[in-house]
This record gives sequence, structure tokens and C-alpha cells, in this order.
Amino acid sequence: MPRYRLTLEYDGTPFRGWQRQADLPSVQQALEEAIGRFSGETPVTQAAGRTDTGVHATGQVVSFDLSRAWDPFRIREALNFHLKPLPVAVVTAEAVPDTFEARFSAVRRHYLYRILNRRARPALEANRVWHVAIPLEAGPMDEAAQMILGRHDFTTFRAAECQANSPLRTLEHFSVRREGETILIEASARSFLHHQVRSMVGSLKLVGEGKWRPEDFRAALDARERARCGPLAPSAGLYLTGVDY
Amino acid sequence: MPRYRLTLEYDGTPFRGWQRQADLPSVQQALEEAIGRFSGETPVTQAAGRTDTGVHATGQVVSFDLSRAWDPFRIREALNFHLKPLPVAVVTAEAVPDTFEARFSAVRRHYLYRILNRRARPALEANRVWHVAIPLEAGPMDEAAQMILGRHDFTTFRAAECQANSPLRTLEHFSVRREGETILIEASARSFLHHQVRSMVGSLKLVGEGKWRPEDFRAALDARERARCGPLAPSAGLYLTGVDY
Repeated sequence: MPRYRLTLEYDGTPFRGWQRQADLPSVQQALEEAIGRFSGETPVTQAAGRTDTGVHATGQVVSFDLSRAWDPFRIREALNFHLKPLPVAVVTAEAVPDTFEARFSAVRRHYLYRILNRRARPALEANRVWHVAIPLEAGPMDEAAQMILGRHDFTTFRAAECQANSPLRTLEHFSVRREGETILIEASARSFLHHQVRSMVGSLKLVGEGKWRPEDFRAALDARERARCGPLAPSAGLYLTGVDY
Repeated sequence: MPRYRLTLEYDGTPFRGWQRQADLPSVQQALEEAIGRFSGETPVTQAAGRTDTGVHATGQVVSFDLSRAWDPFRIREALNFHLKPLPVAVVTAEAVPDTFEARFSAVRRHYLYRILNRRARPALEANRVWHVAIPLEAGPMDEAAQMILGRHDFTTFRAAECQANSPLRTLEHFSVRREGETILIEASARSFLHHQVRSMVGSLKLVGEGKWRPEDFRAALDARERARCGPLAPSAGLYLTGVDY
């Protein structure tokens, strides 16, 4: 069967995450219904990252099979038509070999976390950022981020309900910088544990406001105890920005 | 009476523009009601730019008087509380001399227009950009923009219902550049005619898609005829970004 690969952009606000759930709106369900409307088929789609409720994507990657061969350009146009008015857009569509699996072929996932750091709440970026009114210093946050690069047991930064077999992950890139009123945090790894980025960001925020020193962030990692994690950062600031294969 | 100056950010989507109108939601009405709720007074506010329906602001400036002297920090906090859940935020508040008038003291207004130039419709930036699916070339658009800098009769780029006494305006800055999938157009002048930026952007789009040469854009200006203007660009891409005094 011909296999297709899509790059998706979506606003996670109205969805209970990527993954299909009975009676709750999900990106997967929206996409699969749109595929059904143009093709008459209802394939199960596979995504590179199972984003949580309220988490956004600018570069989610999805794969699925159809029995018929379609021009990928027509797939993209048809899906963008049938997905309306939902905030999901198919940015690219292409035919891929049937060895390609959006989830299992991925070798690196890239996430961006955005904090709006000013007194006033966001007007234009409501649901697009974490609003932190306390002034944050990006320098110490970045220093802390650099201290946990590499392969570690990330139990501290892992949700209690995480179903991964191992808490070991290799953080390949992790950086913090300020652009005006926004603090941008980028994280890349082959894969992440459940809530890992939001757990790390929630703890980095404590560094940014001076409650933790950068060494405290590293010590929290080394403790391998969930109780040592700072409060979880909200989903609205998180974006899956890309996946490497 | 003490006078105050605010900088406002807002999402113009749910409003019929800045200016108060009977029975229609406006930013001015929302702000004046919020002022009333914390101060018990109902001053008339004055804004630097009377943005149209659907036009956004990141740097609108507003002035108003209250009989009592308030700590500007408290004004900002109180307004941001009472404006909830509307997408309007007070970014700064300060006390100013009573010679300051947000509209009449302004010496330069800055606007930004954002075009999302790709096939797929926007998901994360719905109502924040003009979606143009045809590929646009920013180079010729910028070349055209440079050709109309300075003082001119802008009748071509002025709404039929514009109430300004004169069609003469001085365009101080006008530039076009591409950043990835987005085309950013910046325009600065002491003041603009009604629909001037959207009229100029609508015509520049014709240059970007190759229907007009840059010289045609200049010729349209020189014709001083509204009929020579390209289709008006939609309000969703326009932002009032700042005002100089």
C-alpha cells in the first residue's frame, strides 16, 4: 500500500492532545476523519510525538497508508480543505517508502518552549506562551541547561504516569535565551520521557527567578526523585517544532 | 486632573476596531469599562491610532484623566485584572503631564503587516496574518516600497470614506522582507490615511506575484486615483506596533 508522510502545524488548545480518545477531541481523530472524507478510507495514523493536551506543533510528522496512490499535492490540499475550521494545517505531504514510520524511524525530536516574561498577561499570545510575571534571568537558566546535557537517568523530570521502560535519555541540545519579553527554550533528543520538557522548564524557571542556583538544577537531576522537580510548566508554551529521520 | 498614558496590546479579532460604537464591541469601550470598574470614574480615552475592525496592536498608546492620583503600577494591574477575559493587555502605565495627548502629541506611528506565504492555511496564526498561497517575491516588493517614500498625494491608497482634510502624507519608512514563510512589511509615518497601509500592502502583493512591476506601483501612486489601487489587504495581518512622541 502507498505510504504518505505529512508535516502538521496545529494549535493544541482545543484538543486533548494528539492521541485518539473516546468522546474527546484529538488531533489524531480530526486528521483521520479528514483523510476519510477525501479518500473514503480510514487508516490509523502514526505520529512522531504524542503531544499532550494544549501542546502545539509546527513540525509534527505523521505517516499512514492508503490503498490507492494519490498525488501528495492533492492530499495536502484535500486535507487542508476537510480540516477546516479546526486549527490544524498540513504543511507538507509526500509519498514515502513503506519502511518509513513517523514514530519509530525518528532519530531526533525538537521542542521549543516559550515563556512571556513581563507583568502584563498576553493578549495576542494567549494560549501560546507561559506567562511568568516575575523577572527571569536567562543567563543562569542557560547555564543550568548546559549542566544536564548528555545521557542521564531523567526520573526527576518524568511524569509519574510515564510508561517508558527506562528513564534513561540522551539530551542532545538544551538552551535558553531571551528575545525581548520572550524566553525561548530549545530541547532536542532522540526521544523524551512523558512531561520531560515541561518538567525541565518548570525547574529552570526556579533558576531564572533565583530560587535555585544552576547547581541545584543539576542536583535535582542527580537525585533521580520526582519530588525534586519544580512545578510542571503549562502545556500552552510547548511546541513540537521538528523531527529528524 | 492627573493624566495617564498606557501602552496596549490587543487581538483585534473580536472587536469592531478601537473606536466606541453603540451596541458593537470596541477596544475603547472595553478599556473605559475597565477604568470605571477600578476607579469609579468614566473618562473618555484618546488613542494614537484608531485601528479598524480586526486590526491588532502591540504598541497602541492611550491617554486619559482621572480626578484622583493613582500609582501607575496599580492602574496597570487593576486594568489587566478587569479587562479579563478580553484579549487586551496594558503593557505599561505611567503618569504624564496634562499637555500629553495620545493622538495629537504623536509624531510617528509604526505599523507592521504580516503575510503568511505558503500553500497551507495558518493553524497557529489564524486571524494573525494574511494567508497568501501564491509565492511572493519580497525583493521586487521592497523595491516598489522604496519608490514611494517621502511626501506624496496618497489618494490611490486612501479609503473612499477617509475623512482626512488632505491626501498628502509623508511616508518615512516602508520596507518588505521575508523571514521563512512570512513576509514582513513595515511602515512608519507621522500619520496615515484611512486604509492606507492595507491599500499599499494589497498593491504590493500584486508586485510580489509578478502581476505588477515595481514601476507600476509607483505609477499607481502618481495616478492619484482610488481605482488604481490593488484589492485591500485584510485587517488580520495588520499591527500597530508603536508610536513616537
